[in-house]
Amino acid sequence: MTTYFRVFEGTAFTARSPKEIDVLKDHLFCVDANGIIARTVAPDADDYEAIRQRHADEGRYQRLGPGQYLLPGFVDLHVHAPQWAQSGTSLDVPLYDWLHAHTFPLESKFADLGFAAEVYDDLVATLLANGTTTALYFATIHKESSLLLAEICAKKGQRGLVGKVVMDDPAQNPDYYRDADTSTALADTEAFIVAVKALAKNVKQGVYPVVTPRFIPSCTDEALTGLGALAAKHDTHIQSHCSESDWEHEYVLERLGKRDAAALRDFGLLGDKSVMAHCNLLDENDAALFAATGTAVGHCPISNVYFSNSVLPVARWLEKGVEVGLGSDVSGGYSPSLYDNARQAVISSRMLEEGVDPALSADARGVPSSRIGIAEAFYLATAGGGEALSLPIGRLAEGYAWDAQIVDIALAGAKLPVFGNDVPKHEIFQKIMYLARPENIREVWVQGERVHKRA
Amino acid sequence: MTTYFRVFEGTAFTARSPKEIDVLKDHLFCVDANGIIARTVAPDADDYEAIRQRHADEGRYQRLGPGQYLLPGFVDLHVHAPQWAQSGTSLDVPLYDWLHAHTFPLESKFADLGFAAEVYDDLVATLLANGTTTALYFATIHKESSLLLAEICAKKGQRGLVGKVVMDDPAQNPDYYRDADTSTALADTEAFIVAVKALAKNVKQGVYPVVTPRFIPSCTDEALTGLGALAAKHDTHIQSHCSESDWEHEYVLERLGKRDAAALRDFGLLGDKSVMAHCNLLDENDAALFAATGTAVGHCPISNVYFSNSVLPVARWLEKGVEVGLGSDVSGGYSPSLYDNARQAVISSRMLEEGVDPALSADARGVPSSRIGIAEAFYLATAGGGEALSLPIGRLAEGYAWDAQIVDIALAGAKLPVFGNDVPKHEIFQKIMYLARPENIREVWVQGERVHKRA
Ligand SMILES: [Zn+2]
Ligand SMILES: [Zn+2]
Repeated sequence: MTTYFRVFEGTAFTARSPKEIDVLKDHLFCVDANGIIARTVAPDADDYEAIRQRHADEGRYQRLGPGQYLLPGFVDLHVHAPQWAQSGTSLDVPLYDWLHAHTFPLESKFADLGFAAEVYDDLVATLLANGTTTALYFATIHKESSLLLAEICAKKGQRGLVGKVVMDDPAQNPDYYRDADTSTALADTEAFIVAVKALAKNVKQGVYPVVTPRFIPSCTDEALTGLGALAAKHDTHIQSHCSESDWEHEYVLERLGKRDAAALRDFGLLGDKSVMAHCNLLDENDAALFAATGTAVGHCPISNVYFSNSVLPVARWLEKGVEVGLGSDVSGGYSPSLYDNARQAVISSRMLEEGVDPALSADARGVPSSRIGIAEAFYLATAGGGEALSLPIGRLAEGYAWDAQIVDIALAGAKLPVFGNDVPKHEIFQKIMYLARPENIREVWVQGERVHKRA
Repeated sequence: MTTYFRVFEGTAFTARSPKEIDVLKDHLFCVDANGIIARTVAPDADDYEAIRQRHADEGRYQRLGPGQYLLPGFVDLHVHAPQWAQSGTSLDVPLYDWLHAHTFPLESKFADLGFAAEVYDDLVATLLANGTTTALYFATIHKESSLLLAEICAKKGQRGLVGKVVMDDPAQNPDYYRDADTSTALADTEAFIVAVKALAKNVKQGVYPVVTPRFIPSCTDEALTGLGALAAKHDTHIQSHCSESDWEHEYVLERLGKRDAAALRDFGLLGDKSVMAHCNLLDENDAALFAATGTAVGHCPISNVYFSNSVLPVARWLEKGVEVGLGSDVSGGYSPSLYDNARQAVISSRMLEEGVDPALSADARGVPSSRIGIAEAFYLATAGGGEALSLPIGRLAEGYAWDAQIVDIALAGAKLPVFGNDVPKHEIFQKIMYLARPENIREVWVQGERVHKRA
């Protein structure tokens, strides 16, 4: 019999497809030394008892307590790490003002490594405490503190994908916060990629450099072309914002005479390892381009309320084969929790379907067939995020990383409203997704290692 | 010098008006033996030090810790107490089906006092832990377990306003869950009113009986007329649902040939102590009727997403002088937290303003001037709720009850993202409203008594 690194026993929820949740009741999850789930074992398997006994004897076995459930760790596809310092404030101004009056002044402070360490340390710990085991980060323009963010992820055990942000166009960015010039922007990006790849050699869960033009309006054509070439040369992930708001969308149309999606493709920035945040204003052709290139949408439902002027039609793009995952967009979105964002993804989709204006008649109010349910929102936060990043994460299944959260629904002082012993598991699942708080998340694991625990 | 029952020192946020927040920095709050704020004392007052010293010497003084802030307790204007048992589930069906397939079968189980005690105990404790110091409850049709809910509020120290629900129309309600007949419904209601008034004599924070026709479709004309008369006779609060959804609204128009608001007025159910849940489909005349009669709207933004087919234009009705407060509508709304509902109130108002459908042009998408900010949402959760109920609650000001929550933003493991010591207080306020969790709520006080504390 194989001896595994660790064996867990418990009931897990994991996404089979966007609409289907598998309930793995009282399964064993056998994790190898690389932190990969080597085997899941159902209770009726012949060797279930033997595996359990053997790993218990060797101190490699953990059984979930009563009221505890396993969920995959969440994958956050869009976090502006420096903006954590302003989360929850200044949400009443338009995107352009928000950037220039609040966000750029804050991000410019990340030239200071001490300040960066304080904010990044707190953010990564907070995300882990919220069940986010993988995060795709925008850092700032600063090469050094962007590398520091990758180091903090490495140290705290989170799977971090980190981008040094490029914004080199002097006409669009303030003097106090932009790359010195295009060639410096590209050179810093390449040095950053090399440094993160070196760091990654000793990081079990992985850290990854990400090519990160802020968005088209921030960058010169030369920078965008150069970044596409760097991503190809080093085979990195790519992230940016795409078709986020009316203002941004109009700007790109005027400057380049084409829509965001086509422009990004022409710069070499779409592909299987590309994630584009927001994408609210995609049209059918744009979506087809995403699907064809394997480019994923990072859907940020809370942020969209404040800055995107509309609701992403998630159901429609999933139907068309576009990869979609979930992003908090800290701090365009105030919440670091993908639970909150999953709830808002459902809510926003319902509001798109039903419409919002009571002065209109019911049949003129909304867009039929737009809703997603909480199961689909869970898919977006887990397996959808994994597929977006083309990494084996987001599912509690063989071949996937052991990235997991242990959620306790019976915790004194924070129990979920479950009464009686015969509540169906799919209702437990719904209650967890709608009602769990960080308090309920007792342990978080990444790549087979425990990275967060509440006493 | 007066000796007060208790004196608290700390920085408080309290609503002056729907848009204005007062920041009371390092004030003393002097609470009398009845649990009323007898005096608030600014640090520059002559007797500030003397009051503090004297009450410290007598063990009647409490100073908030570093990182702690005072907020008024929240007022939840709409809670279906029995539905707590199904919170977070079955949110994907239309209102009519939701009632008949899920909600009525659950509510019928509250004939069982043991089951009722288990659910109600957990709910009241949960609401207190979420900072809700006053709640306006729908119980069930059962006189005894409705009284039990009032007793549990009394015992746990929450200010409960409780209604035995009336639903007597055999054509609209299932045989297994309705009042036996109209005269029984009215007799049970009156007996319930008398019993709660008797209970209230020994309850410091108050408990109140509420005349509670479920909604017009559930009740015969005779019951509605009789309930209006009972409310007048006993001078009670009144609650029901009004103009909630397209289905409900059409039904009333067909049956009575008038809109909900006019029908409720004609039954004697509108007035200064009336709170009507939802009201999404009010028109200008309905709103004028609400303003003229002092009837309040219980705005339930999370629930509305699932069951009301539209967004309440809160900003518009506030502008017209309608009283509006906030309701969780457990379990039409999944969350017991008014923080969650305040956040959603802002979000929904933004979505009404901006519109939702990205296929429409920006100027055709939304309803201009619909947004509210987090300050207004806070007003709805506090002072607005107090005004809706015509009770001296919802403000940390002289003459108001000492209903307060102590929120800790620096708690280890749950700190809010505040970096540096010079963060303006209005930003702290926003961060609390957007980011606080039940964990951050360290103590909750009602009418001068501590009713919840985290170790
Ligand atoms: Zn962003
Ligand atoms: Zn209701």
